[in-house]
Amino acid sequence: MAKNLTTRKEDYSKWYNELVVKADLAENSAVRGCMVIKPYGYAIWEKMQAQLDKMFKETGHQNAYFPLFVPKSLFEAEEKNAEGFAKECAIVTHYRLKNDPDNKGKLIVDPEAKLEEELVVRPTSEAIIWNTYKGWIQSYRDLPILVNQWANVVRWEMRTRLFLRTAEFLWQEGHTAHATKAEALAETEQMNDIYAEFAENFMAMPVIKGRKTESERFAGAEETYCIEAMMQDGKALQAGTSHFLGQNFAKAFDVKFATKEGSLDHVWATSWGVSTRLMGALIMTHSDDNGLVLPPNLAPIQVVIVPIYKGEEQLEQISVVANELAKELRGQGISVKYDDRDTQKPGWKFAQYELQGVPVRIAIGPKDLEKGSVELARRDTLSKEFVAQKDVVEKVKGLMIEIQENLHQKALTFRNEYITPVNDFESFKEVLKSKGGFISAHWDGTAETENKIKELTKATIRLIPFDSEKEEGTCVYTGKPSAGRVLFAKAY
Amino acid sequence: MAKNLTTRKEDYSKWYNELVVKADLAENSAVRGCMVIKPYGYAIWEKMQAQLDKMFKETGHQNAYFPLFVPKSLFEAEEKNAEGFAKECAIVTHYRLKNDPDNKGKLIVDPEAKLEEELVVRPTSEAIIWNTYKGWIQSYRDLPILVNQWANVVRWEMRTRLFLRTAEFLWQEGHTAHATKAEALAETEQMNDIYAEFAENFMAMPVIKGRKTESERFAGAEETYCIEAMMQDGKALQAGTSHFLGQNFAKAFDVKFATKEGSLDHVWATSWGVSTRLMGALIMTHSDDNGLVLPPNLAPIQVVIVPIYKGEEQLEQISVVANELAKELRGQGISVKYDDRDTQKPGWKFAQYELQGVPVRIAIGPKDLEKGSVELARRDTLSKEFVAQKDVVEKVKGLMIEIQENLHQKALTFRNEYITPVNDFESFKEVLKSKGGFISAHWDGTAETENKIKELTKATIRLIPFDSEKEEGTCVYTGKPSAGRVLFAKAY
Ligand SMILES: [Zn+2]
Ligand SMILES: [Zn+2]
Repeated sequence: MAKNLTTRKEDYSKWYNELVVKADLAENSAVRGCMVIKPYGYAIWEKMQAQLDKMFKETGHQNAYFPLFVPKSLFEAEEKNAEGFAKECAIVTHYRLKNDPDNKGKLIVDPEAKLEEELVVRPTSEAIIWNTYKGWIQSYRDLPILVNQWANVVRWEMRTRLFLRTAEFLWQEGHTAHATKAEALAETEQMNDIYAEFAENFMAMPVIKGRKTESERFAGAEETYCIEAMMQDGKALQAGTSHFLGQNFAKAFDVKFATKEGSLDHVWATSWGVSTRLMGALIMTHSDDNGLVLPPNLAPIQVVIVPIYKGEEQLEQISVVANELAKELRGQGISVKYDDRDTQKPGWKFAQYELQGVPVRIAIGPKDLEKGSVELARRDTLSKEFVAQKDVVEKVKGLMIEIQENLHQKALTFRNEYITPVNDFESFKEVLKSKGGFISAHWDGTAETENKIKELTKATIRLIPFDSEKEEGTCVYTGKPSAGRVLFAKAY
Repeated sequence: MAKNLTTRKEDYSKWYNELVVKADLAENSAVRGCMVIKPYGYAIWEKMQAQLDKMFKETGHQNAYFPLFVPKSLFEAEEKNAEGFAKECAIVTHYRLKNDPDNKGKLIVDPEAKLEEELVVRPTSEAIIWNTYKGWIQSYRDLPILVNQWANVVRWEMRTRLFLRTAEFLWQEGHTAHATKAEALAETEQMNDIYAEFAENFMAMPVIKGRKTESERFAGAEETYCIEAMMQDGKALQAGTSHFLGQNFAKAFDVKFATKEGSLDHVWATSWGVSTRLMGALIMTHSDDNGLVLPPNLAPIQVVIVPIYKGEEQLEQISVVANELAKELRGQGISVKYDDRDTQKPGWKFAQYELQGVPVRIAIGPKDLEKGSVELARRDTLSKEFVAQKDVVEKVKGLMIEIQENLHQKALTFRNEYITPVNDFESFKEVLKSKGGFISAHWDGTAETENKIKELTKATIRLIPFDSEKEEGTCVYTGKPSAGRVLFAKAY
């Protein structure tokens, strides 16, 4: 039930943590930093997966599966990548437990079963995949390779939060191999565009597309493209990244191909990923003090029907109408749950589905039977109205589109209000403190200034937007010349 | 290309290993015992997943996700289960690498980043899941819990083979919780039935349903149901198992619920799983010396169209027909690949798709254009015929059903020939040696006899079939009384 949910104003962070647990999305497990994704949360993730997978396949990608473990010697082959992940890796050192001689019924690690070479639990799979691609690529005929993997990865984060930062998380990682730099760059951009399209049209979450600065790039990448979203508390969230890896991994793993012209060249690479972090972004973009708000395109239950009745006989009469309605709605491809459980009261159910963000709720009571109507409630606006039973299907079909778009527009309006152009450092600090959001400011292009600003304000350069207007100016911190504005923000 | 595939007669095991690699299904990786599942192999696995997932959901199950790691103290809670898996577990002991001071550019495990409690990489998830269910279950209202997980698991096997036995494999594991023993037993049986239905109707693989003997049960189970299939070399393969876990895990993790009557009772449990091992079963059931043979219901490409042409102009004319045909077939829900690559010759393509088991191949050459026909080849029978272009769609639609059923019948005939009733131990040994397959024999019901027979012959009791006729007899080894026949075999 929704009762006792901390409000966003009181404590946004606490609101989020409570919401994730109370809406049955996920919970912490017995393993430090690892979460359990509960069925309702996982059903949303499955809808995300299905749509993304479709978009990947439509652009020619195929799925495959590579090992969970990376031998240490492969892991360290691409130095920058290794350096970037070495400090947060789970390491397998042994392959057997044995009975504890001092403690009946307990087990200890068998010291005789020590691995010759330690295995890193993959924090990302470039190393193991490029070691594999070496065997797959001989000539230009073998290119491009357009492969994606749905998998779990582990990064031993010290401070974790459900969905947003967990030691183990689920994601997809695309790994492509190309004959030319131009083709790899086009792939990098295409996948970033697909992420943006998914965020806007399915998550109803506005995102800004752009590139990362050198210090914010993926370890081992020559260029990182990203999509960035704005949460309701004024903090940015990186929702997806697509990396142009140049020839770095091909060189580290010696992957060459015979060109059409007969020469040998190193292969060009990209990688790109989104993760269960998107669940956190989805929750924070739309939800309110009553709980989760889901866009219809990702809602596992789009419509819930609740009967209001006294006694078996009334329930039976209502169920005739409800089941017929459910059937018709399902015929239109709408997912419907008819909740006729007698173990819970209608009020409890209303609160529960509100908390779980079901877009449309239909209630049917004895008076509705008389009038041939139903009561229809929208989760996004919390508004209610009576609708004639014969009009419900058309009404709901329209609402699926309307609610999706309303959430998108609302989030877009919010996000646009949270981009503040700033021209001096005092205003920068002031806006960051009083309002938050993206700060659009000139930057002199150096890592030094970027770090200094981060040190002083905790704001980082989220991205250099692709579509920012060419505008000459002076750096908000150093006053040195700048060729365009970038977006700063505090971030998740 | 198919050339140089070892024949089954020469060396069945070598044939299998070569086929898996040459048909682009999977390969060994740099990690001992872990495989890379290549896109073509993974596409078959995805079709399996989609169908099984549908069947699970139709029977009320939901997916969820639980951590990869199991803390050692949880792992050892259910003693029999722990004992069964302790000897083959990958253990995480550290969470960080650091630069090797003696070896620039190399990394070593940071001894200061030792975990207080070691983590077991899940070989199966009963422990972590039942520890979670403890928080989910208070009353009968919370039951049943019908949850499934698609995941990777790790069992440190010493002798590994692609798909059949790998250190890491992909699977699904269902974990359900029930208020009564009867309900849990019914679930155990239902899921075993679903596996059988999937094997027969989608894999076209005949299976026998039954229960395991006590010594072959899952560690921690009170009853293990299974489906067993027969491979072409006369060895049995366990294709799926469904376990009735009694109250063992509820007791180990102290999971009780308030009954409707107000008392407290331990929860009843089941678990059930199938894995990428099914890929091995699928390959070995149908394939021949020319390569893979896939049943249409699981073939990623059901029909391939190959143009036979000289020069651009001919290709263009053929492509008009081919693309129209592909479009019509796709309109009927048939997956079609039109392979008009100019980098490979038709002969190479024919061999490749034969090797990869594509059920139907259509070739279109200039003479076919004149005659309004195509050449259609079936992978299962290797037969070819000319079909009028206007009849192709209907023909192919029929073939999808016909080939599926032909493969099933062929496998069924084979399997039935490989069940040999035997009444004395000399014949037992003789049949096992000369013919193999299932041996249907009386057994006195003791683990002692079972072990003795295993020791002497390497044959194990695969299952006690559910549908075996009640027949009194005497044990094939000890001569003691027996209430019915069981099936012995050597097994994968
Ligand atoms: Zn919109
Ligand atoms: Zn059949």
